[in-house]
Amino acid sequence: MEAPSAGAQCPCGRQSGRCEGRHRVVIVGGGFGGLYAALSLRREPVHVTMIDQRNFHLFQPLLYQVATGGLSPANIAAPLRAILSRQDNACVLLAEATGIDAEKRQVILSDGAVSYDTLIVAAGASHHYFGNEHWQPLAPGLKTVEDATEIRRRILLAFEAAERTFDADKRRAWLTFVIVGAGPTGLELAGTLSEIAHDTLKRDFRHINPADAQILLLEGADRVLPPFPSDLSAAAAAALSRLGVTVRTGAMVTDVRLDAVTIRAGEATETISTHTVIWAAGVKASPLGQVLADARRPCAEARRPCAEARRPCAEARRPCAEATGAELDRTGRVLVEGDCSVPGHPDILVIGDLAHHAGADGKPLPAVAPVAMQQGRYVARLIRARLRGKSLPPFRYRDRGMMATIGRAAAVADIKGLRVTGYPAWLAWLFVHLMYLVQFENRQLVFLQWGWSYFTRNRAARLITGESPLPLDL
Amino acid sequence: MEAPSAGAQCPCGRQSGRCEGRHRVVIVGGGFGGLYAALSLRREPVHVTMIDQRNFHLFQPLLYQVATGGLSPANIAAPLRAILSRQDNACVLLAEATGIDAEKRQVILSDGAVSYDTLIVAAGASHHYFGNEHWQPLAPGLKTVEDATEIRRRILLAFEAAERTFDADKRRAWLTFVIVGAGPTGLELAGTLSEIAHDTLKRDFRHINPADAQILLLEGADRVLPPFPSDLSAAAAAALSRLGVTVRTGAMVTDVRLDAVTIRAGEATETISTHTVIWAAGVKASPLGQVLADARRPCAEARRPCAEARRPCAEARRPCAEATGAELDRTGRVLVEGDCSVPGHPDILVIGDLAHHAGADGKPLPAVAPVAMQQGRYVARLIRARLRGKSLPPFRYRDRGMMATIGRAAAVADIKGLRVTGYPAWLAWLFVHLMYLVQFENRQLVFLQWGWSYFTRNRAARLITGESPLPLDL
Repeated sequence: MEAPSAGAQCPCGRQSGRCEGRHRVVIVGGGFGGLYAALSLRREPVHVTMIDQRNFHLFQPLLYQVATGGLSPANIAAPLRAILSRQDNACVLLAEATGIDAEKRQVILSDGAVSYDTLIVAAGASHHYFGNEHWQPLAPGLKTVEDATEIRRRILLAFEAAERTFDADKRRAWLTFVIVGAGPTGLELAGTLSEIAHDTLKRDFRHINPADAQILLLEGADRVLPPFPSDLSAAAAAALSRLGVTVRTGAMVTDVRLDAVTIRAGEATETISTHTVIWAAGVKASPLGQVLADARRPCAEARRPCAEARRPCAEARRPCAEATGAELDRTGRVLVEGDCSVPGHPDILVIGDLAHHAGADGKPLPAVAPVAMQQGRYVARLIRARLRGKSLPPFRYRDRGMMATIGRAAAVADIKGLRVTGYPAWLAWLFVHLMYLVQFENRQLVFLQWGWSYFTRNRAARLITGESPLPLDL
Repeated sequence: MEAPSAGAQCPCGRQSGRCEGRHRVVIVGGGFGGLYAALSLRREPVHVTMIDQRNFHLFQPLLYQVATGGLSPANIAAPLRAILSRQDNACVLLAEATGIDAEKRQVILSDGAVSYDTLIVAAGASHHYFGNEHWQPLAPGLKTVEDATEIRRRILLAFEAAERTFDADKRRAWLTFVIVGAGPTGLELAGTLSEIAHDTLKRDFRHINPADAQILLLEGADRVLPPFPSDLSAAAAAALSRLGVTVRTGAMVTDVRLDAVTIRAGEATETISTHTVIWAAGVKASPLGQVLADARRPCAEARRPCAEARRPCAEARRPCAEATGAELDRTGRVLVEGDCSVPGHPDILVIGDLAHHAGADGKPLPAVAPVAMQQGRYVARLIRARLRGKSLPPFRYRDRGMMATIGRAAAVADIKGLRVTGYPAWLAWLFVHLMYLVQFENRQLVFLQWGWSYFTRNRAARLITGESPLPLDL
């Protein structure tokens, strides 16, 4: 990219005429928040630049299906360019946003910079190992496509290794699967693993019975699904138990090694032999949160339109005013105003998992897709209102309920206080995910594949790919 | 794996009773040859052990569809265990066969050994760079799932890089795709790349026109599809030209670098700027061919049944007879007898791409899936005949024709001398692939996905995954 460091790129590069005079909206992150913001701006007189490190939007709620061989990555991912291809006021930049220069109103890329008038930061979150980041290679989390195929690889290789080990203890260790964290993702993984062991692989091995697999779900709190009403937690725990999953609440992981995990429950300490640990315990906001914490107020010079931005702003080298960085919460999320903006920076909006947005009860809104989607739509409306010199009441989350699926035809849901369990909840879960997925071209195929694997109990995508898996380290 | 080096594992490990008294057939390689052999042995009183490094069978004729984002890996792969799950006389071993001890009748694994009475080696082939193996990372071939996703990554990233480069020469280099080798795979890749450039990505970019991509197909011989009749080669060349593919025959690659490829055509030398080179030029037989070339005749001691094999054969340390290794051809394939056995080793059968089997005209049979499948079925019949004290006439390949597809509704086929081109040939190609694919459970979905992308001209699986692709090296 030419002359990246000297000045900022106009979002649409050298293609003349596109951005001139238009309000430039730059969106960092093509997840639910960023994508819904971009789509909601399609009729507005703005120029939208979507920046993402990946060339696709990922439907994360179904990522566990990839990790367990039920779906292929492409089934739950849609190329960002394809989604936005017919939106003429939008362009996509495959790039990594490494910083934000709030003074110059620029997003710093690893190989350039892009100027904005309004910035939407929707960079999401990654795993949090609570200071034990060295556990990451031993206990991968589930955030990216690569995470999912790596977890799939480990699960399938564990069964293969068990098949080839004749030492009873070693075999038991290979057939022990530990999932840390009993939130929705942990439950989905545990439930699906149980299906794999009991149904999918039933006839596949000759020396082991896959149903002997022990699936352990660890949770630090005193019940599964801590944010849910306690009767739904109890229903979920009962469903897990029916599936043969062992739930251990009040259990903290104190060590993860290549062949074991150590937990502390109350006073007691226990070491469990296992080779497969999956981390579904905590998330940490994107490092762009910290970047915003260090941000400075924009200088007057930098407010000039597009053409001017190409020469370095004289003011930029010294602070124009007091540093007015954002405040972060414990997990690195940015505390935002009611309208999703960063205090002191009305032109920077933070949405989705990166935002700490106080709900009606004062508690932060949960880090779930519906919040991000609604915030994405809200900030689009906010930008439209501002362009017309108007303002908008603060963002209010319309909570349509919480749900978690546990396995075939088992789920729990809290829909506006109506608590549903079992098959009806599972149907509701399916319906909601179907509703959102069908917005993508070609997504119908997921449901065919899904329906197929539901009725046949087969999981077609159980491939061991990636790094050469051999020799097995038995 | 316990005590791997001391003695050999009984194929079915410690599960007693399964192999006792049964003739032990060990198959190395779960491709077309090995898989068809295993399936054809399902009713025989033998014990089959299928050894493969991968846990799935790959439908390689459609691998180019993965490399070009039309299908997901799981669409063209089926877990070996799933295929053989209901075949009680078969077990699957996920392991790497590193050697063959013909004297002791054992396959040596990276972590153990397996005894056989009859060995079927169907280990296939990999790329051949004709002594320029250092070109491999610069010009990947298309043999594995990882190859395919890597090629997909490179193709998609090239368009992304072009979008972000404003230097005309650099942009042209990013939009230049070079395919080395105009066999069926080269043609399929070239034709599909043209589709991607002209249809799939049509509206996806803002600064480049993907249709400006230059697709170059290089071939050392004097025409495309050298093994085909020359009028079909001409028809294929015409179809390629209609698709905008530039064909260069009589062109030898003399150098591959990160940003260019150098070719020699006659006396002239030319360097073409490009970042995307795909190798579809040559194959080299599996290293197990060399292992067989070094093989020795089995010693009498080793002929004892299963139980005996656990103690080391006294004879094994010194050669029982003259070394009687197999003879290899120029590409490392094993010259086999008419019954697929290695000369001097009637208990070792070599089939598929690893075998050099002289056809009726004295020329080796082509390295294509139908040959491997038919040989797989033949060796199964041969084993059955031998178990009954009978023999079988030599293997004879029933050539049902050759075909190559070029793009949407374009193909050439030579079906028993009947030469077909265009849409009828494409339908024939589709029909044949459909016929073979539907043998796998769940494969119907491929055709849905395929039909879908045929009619919508969309390619849903165009994900850039794997190693972090950023920053783009512009």
